[in-house]
Amino acid sequence: MTNSQNQVYPIIWHDDTVSLIDQTRLPNEYAFVEIHRSEDMAWAIKTMIVRGAPAIGVAAAYGIYLGAREIETSNHQEFLQRLEQVAQLLRSTRPTAVNLFWAISRMMKTAYENLGSVAELKQNLLETAQAIHAEDLQTCQAIGDNGLAVLPKNPEKLTILTHCNAGALATAGYGTALGVVRSAWREGRLARVFADETRPRLQGAKLTAWECVQEGIPVTVITDNMAAHCMKQGLIHAVVVGADRIAANGDTANKIGTYSVAIAAKAHNIPFFVAAPLSTVDFALSDGSQIPIEERNPAEIYQVGDTILTPSGVDFYNPAFDVTPAELITAIITENGAFAPSDLAKSQVKQAV
Amino acid sequence: MTNSQNQVYPIIWHDDTVSLIDQTRLPNEYAFVEIHRSEDMAWAIKTMIVRGAPAIGVAAAYGIYLGAREIETSNHQEFLQRLEQVAQLLRSTRPTAVNLFWAISRMMKTAYENLGSVAELKQNLLETAQAIHAEDLQTCQAIGDNGLAVLPKNPEKLTILTHCNAGALATAGYGTALGVVRSAWREGRLARVFADETRPRLQGAKLTAWECVQEGIPVTVITDNMAAHCMKQGLIHAVVVGADRIAANGDTANKIGTYSVAIAAKAHNIPFFVAAPLSTVDFALSDGSQIPIEERNPAEIYQVGDTILTPSGVDFYNPAFDVTPAELITAIITENGAFAPSDLAKSQVKQAV
Repeated sequence: MTNSQNQVYPIIWHDDTVSLIDQTRLPNEYAFVEIHRSEDMAWAIKTMIVRGAPAIGVAAAYGIYLGAREIETSNHQEFLQRLEQVAQLLRSTRPTAVNLFWAISRMMKTAYENLGSVAELKQNLLETAQAIHAEDLQTCQAIGDNGLAVLPKNPEKLTILTHCNAGALATAGYGTALGVVRSAWREGRLARVFADETRPRLQGAKLTAWECVQEGIPVTVITDNMAAHCMKQGLIHAVVVGADRIAANGDTANKIGTYSVAIAAKAHNIPFFVAAPLSTVDFALSDGSQIPIEERNPAEIYQVGDTILTPSGVDFYNPAFDVTPAELITAIITENGAFAPSDLAKSQVKQAV
Repeated sequence: MTNSQNQVYPIIWHDDTVSLIDQTRLPNEYAFVEIHRSEDMAWAIKTMIVRGAPAIGVAAAYGIYLGAREIETSNHQEFLQRLEQVAQLLRSTRPTAVNLFWAISRMMKTAYENLGSVAELKQNLLETAQAIHAEDLQTCQAIGDNGLAVLPKNPEKLTILTHCNAGALATAGYGTALGVVRSAWREGRLARVFADETRPRLQGAKLTAWECVQEGIPVTVITDNMAAHCMKQGLIHAVVVGADRIAANGDTANKIGTYSVAIAAKAHNIPFFVAAPLSTVDFALSDGSQIPIEERNPAEIYQVGDTILTPSGVDFYNPAFDVTPAELITAIITENGAFAPSDLAKSQVKQAV
């Protein structure tokens, strides 16, 4: 199975199996991993074979179905109990991206609301996972086009800085932040992407750069600490990033380093956009201080390939995300339009700023 | 030859030879390179076997002497002409750190002012290089103690963030920013150092972390893009960095990423100190826009050890330094005291703020 043309689809459902692009091997190797069981899907999410908030949601939805089809019972109650265990396993993989919990909730709602046979219920779960998958692709295309409408009018060809990878690889396809980039490229509004390499896992250098090269979009990779200097040099016209969880007030958790970029953008009067599906908004949280921040293995910091960077005897701190306060965000670009953070509540009704 | 105890001296003059700690091999290997000729010294500076603005100055001074002693003539005029070629080679190694040019100028002044024999002149050059070397160590100790006086009074035990390595390795010994850290540690005012890893060359992860471990100072290594998040979490009480060149108005060129840290410190009301000898101040430049910024090989970004991080077809931008404007700097800590950037002109007379 191949992805058609240059289009990148990190999750493919075929022959009763989920194929995932192994994102830990990019850019050196473009390989797929086949996932048959929910436990394998949980592992793939935890180890970041699949990553990116919307993609994690889609993957978890299929994970629920893969778990469901292994439950051998015709007893509705027993089925639901065992499905809860599958859901619990998948929920425990990564704490910050809310799309994971959103997709699992939607799948479980499908399960609880279906009063037919267990066989019908399983089929229904597959269809819901496929719907989540298809909707995410459409959502990203809408985000891309909505983003186009709020990008600065000058210059005609923009240079956009992005952080981490909020691209096709992080979604069902097309991307959120890179969805805006793709729409801008299609409409002749893009000169170049500047990609922060995004330590420690280098998703910018590895994944965003790879996606841009696939589509022939000019891309300059910089280390994260160069972003402010590039802004001062006048090289950057707008910043567009993705999100892992957005609180009701617009505070946004995204890959570590996003906050730093947002502070620098503000200092240089450069617009800072968050591009994300509405499934990323957690209206249950009033502000970003309530978003749980995942801490990951320090080896991500001290080891690159086979090289150990630090001496022994050193401590590490490895938060995977940070929270950018709403006041640093120009607009949040969703499938329903772009909204000032303070207008986020209005986003549930389709209307643009 | 060994460095005594835990003291780190990156440049040692012995047996008519300069020994340099090979800083490209740390922290994995603590090895010395012997330098006998000015060409080798130029190479050592260019490839960052020796690095850090004050250390480059000391190394270049010895480089002038090594070149001088190879000039076989008793003709004063011919000697000076050939010494100018040596100076030119050394000046061409790295453009940003002004200490390089300062030390070479001081050596050349010695040469031009000495009216004795060529043999006497050579001896005089060695003595000047040794004086520059000895003075830099004393200067760093004074900077450390002057820094102690301006650190925040609360809490009693501070956590200090630093960027890159402005340590013993970057100077004749003791360090500038890490000189302040060492003085604070000695006086019981330090809880811990947070060290930005400092991409692309990772001097924080490799060198600052190594220096701290040598002295038993607790050190936490973070990726550069975590600094702002750590500040927001209340983990950082002060930032202290070194400098490669300071303009007359206090604008400061230092390792790429310093500007980003300074913006973040300002946003969190955390004091931001620059620690540097007065030889780092270039009074000929009215502001930082005139400081030449070195661009280095993109391989520093895309390769770590044997690992290639990016796909082919990507562009890179690799400025080695950035300029932090004076308004983001709380004080510049020199051997003559700590000065508000606007009072830098007063620094040439010994007085503290």
